[in-house]
Amino acid sequence: MSNPALSPTLQLACELIDRPSVTPLDEGCQALMCRRLADAGFQIEPMRIEEVDNFWALRGGEGPVLCFAGHTDVVPTGPLEKWQHNPFAARIDETGMLCGRGAADMKGSLASMIIAVERFVAEHPHHRGAIAFLITSDEEGPAQHGTKAVVERLRERGQRLDWCIVGEPSSTTLLGDVVKNGRRGSLGGVLTVRGKQGHVAYPHLARNPIHLAAAALAELAAEHWDDGNAFFPPTSFQISNIHGGTGATNVIPGELEVVFNFRFSTESSEDGLKQRVAAILDRHGLDWSVDWALSGLPFLTQPGELLDAVAQSIRTVTGRDTTPSTSGGTSDGRFIATLGTQVVELGPVNATIHQIDERILASDLDLLTEVYYQTLVRLLAC
Amino acid sequence: MSNPALSPTLQLACELIDRPSVTPLDEGCQALMCRRLADAGFQIEPMRIEEVDNFWALRGGEGPVLCFAGHTDVVPTGPLEKWQHNPFAARIDETGMLCGRGAADMKGSLASMIIAVERFVAEHPHHRGAIAFLITSDEEGPAQHGTKAVVERLRERGQRLDWCIVGEPSSTTLLGDVVKNGRRGSLGGVLTVRGKQGHVAYPHLARNPIHLAAAALAELAAEHWDDGNAFFPPTSFQISNIHGGTGATNVIPGELEVVFNFRFSTESSEDGLKQRVAAILDRHGLDWSVDWALSGLPFLTQPGELLDAVAQSIRTVTGRDTTPSTSGGTSDGRFIATLGTQVVELGPVNATIHQIDERILASDLDLLTEVYYQTLVRLLAC
Repeated sequence: MSNPALSPTLQLACELIDRPSVTPLDEGCQALMCRRLADAGFQIEPMRIEEVDNFWALRGGEGPVLCFAGHTDVVPTGPLEKWQHNPFAARIDETGMLCGRGAADMKGSLASMIIAVERFVAEHPHHRGAIAFLITSDEEGPAQHGTKAVVERLRERGQRLDWCIVGEPSSTTLLGDVVKNGRRGSLGGVLTVRGKQGHVAYPHLARNPIHLAAAALAELAAEHWDDGNAFFPPTSFQISNIHGGTGATNVIPGELEVVFNFRFSTESSEDGLKQRVAAILDRHGLDWSVDWALSGLPFLTQPGELLDAVAQSIRTVTGRDTTPSTSGGTSDGRFIATLGTQVVELGPVNATIHQIDERILASDLDLLTEVYYQTLVRLLAC
Repeated sequence: MSNPALSPTLQLACELIDRPSVTPLDEGCQALMCRRLADAGFQIEPMRIEEVDNFWALRGGEGPVLCFAGHTDVVPTGPLEKWQHNPFAARIDETGMLCGRGAADMKGSLASMIIAVERFVAEHPHHRGAIAFLITSDEEGPAQHGTKAVVERLRERGQRLDWCIVGEPSSTTLLGDVVKNGRRGSLGGVLTVRGKQGHVAYPHLARNPIHLAAAALAELAAEHWDDGNAFFPPTSFQISNIHGGTGATNVIPGELEVVFNFRFSTESSEDGLKQRVAAILDRHGLDWSVDWALSGLPFLTQPGELLDAVAQSIRTVTGRDTTPSTSGGTSDGRFIATLGTQVVELGPVNATIHQIDERILASDLDLLTEVYYQTLVRLLAC
């Protein structure tokens, strides 16, 4: 779709949406972005890892590095017949909404980033520091060979990365009303409590793991793990699955399995939570083991240069004060934050992401381009 | 197998064992018993109910009725190759053990009953009261069309039944060391605790039924239901199965299912237990329901004519004092006791029942015949 009546941002957004890049496919989105960035003076480094297309692009020299991060893959459309229009043929409807899969999550943001950067480097060809792009096509899938793997390569080469803006749709009702300045950690566990199988008529010959574990599970469920802090809600513990029993109604089972998950704030640590779980299980005299699986450490970008620049740019462009938030699920920001980078997620309204008829207010994308541009000016203009 | 060197009891026991009457088959065992009882002056009443062979036999007139009860069906053999000998070809081995499926449970007892009764009626043709037999071929199976159904017919016709000796293998190490004078009741329940499904990252929008129920389950497991009494151990509560969860590790389930069972003494009642469970669940504020299933009410034969006669006969024959016990699983005695009958289970040593190479000391069967005979004399001789 090429329409001279559209703004550069909307035109590029439509070109990206028209490419059916259902995760982990990229379908040429990154090639399109790379051509634009190369024309703007970036050094382009494709990083295809396993079946996943990624690229890293850098422009500039010594000094602080501001990275734009995001993904070209989108979630599947679901039943096509439920869409009002072809999800891979972007259009702006009569109410001014940009419609199509990825409009909000997150091809709109990618377009805004490119246009903002093109304008910034044209106006500030000798900006201080460097601008970077870290783009993957595997954010909506397993996310193993995408941002996580690219970050490992950057870490190995000692790449400096001061600030990162992830284009995830952070806004809730109006553009810029919320930015994400962190995410909770996620720590999973599969607890096995061992007893001794037997017959319900002879309980003295058996040890019922369900009975033995019940009080410990009650204590885990009632435990106050931390108070959270100004940026995080208190750490929460939830049991998602519990299974014990042979199916027979007269048999005391030999084992109980309990699957649980922590969403934890920066007030708790992975090791600390593990130790506190162990202490509770031990205090109840259980014969237990836990298989732990860390999905992501919590990260937090404290108020500082990046958050200030973003917040001021939002106020300048939209007139509103943004609210930093750490709520919601995990995002690729957690991988980038491990480099010591200040990370902020800033993108369009997320009300329709992953849904039929995904859409955003078209004019919001032009505002978003302006916000990204203003942030570039605040951080890297000489 | 016919061997003139064997006692009448052992000879009949072998004839019964040789019939492969795996539950619910009878394979002619009852016909054999009925011929012997008819010759001894019994009126025979076959009661085939659905696919189950049963019979009721009665000899005598006005006055107290002593019934011998038991079953001709046996449990499956398991892998034949693991048996030292054919389980359906009875033999007495070099150590004096009668070997074969049903030797202990309970064809040996059936043979002892027949021989004891034959001898008693020969010596006391004009005994007081009446002697009866209630025999089924569905004790090891579903037990719906066996003793339970026969008892209902007896109840409808107002059949008097004062005393009943069930031939279940009650002895633990030596013949007659233990008789069963009752059994605990069995009350099952399937508890459903309802919460509200949600995402583990947003626990405030969900209600986790596993968390909500944990403390209540701990309290149920720790509850002291009663002290039991001189005849019963304390009532016990056991959870046999617990299931909650969608399988996904990030979803808080909407429901939890808990399957439990009470084995209860005569110190607790069905309604009382139900009310106490409800009180505990309500105290924890749960949204719950229970599907109850009563498998059997507890019954108890207090010391009295039957228990005295049995105990004295055991002492006379074996020189030992018997121990009345109510331990173990359920038995058909629970159905007979509902007629107001005093019920005692008395049979051989139960160490090998339901196992490969089921066997009992052959000489114990002759002792058992003598105990049954002495009991007949004490209760029904003029």
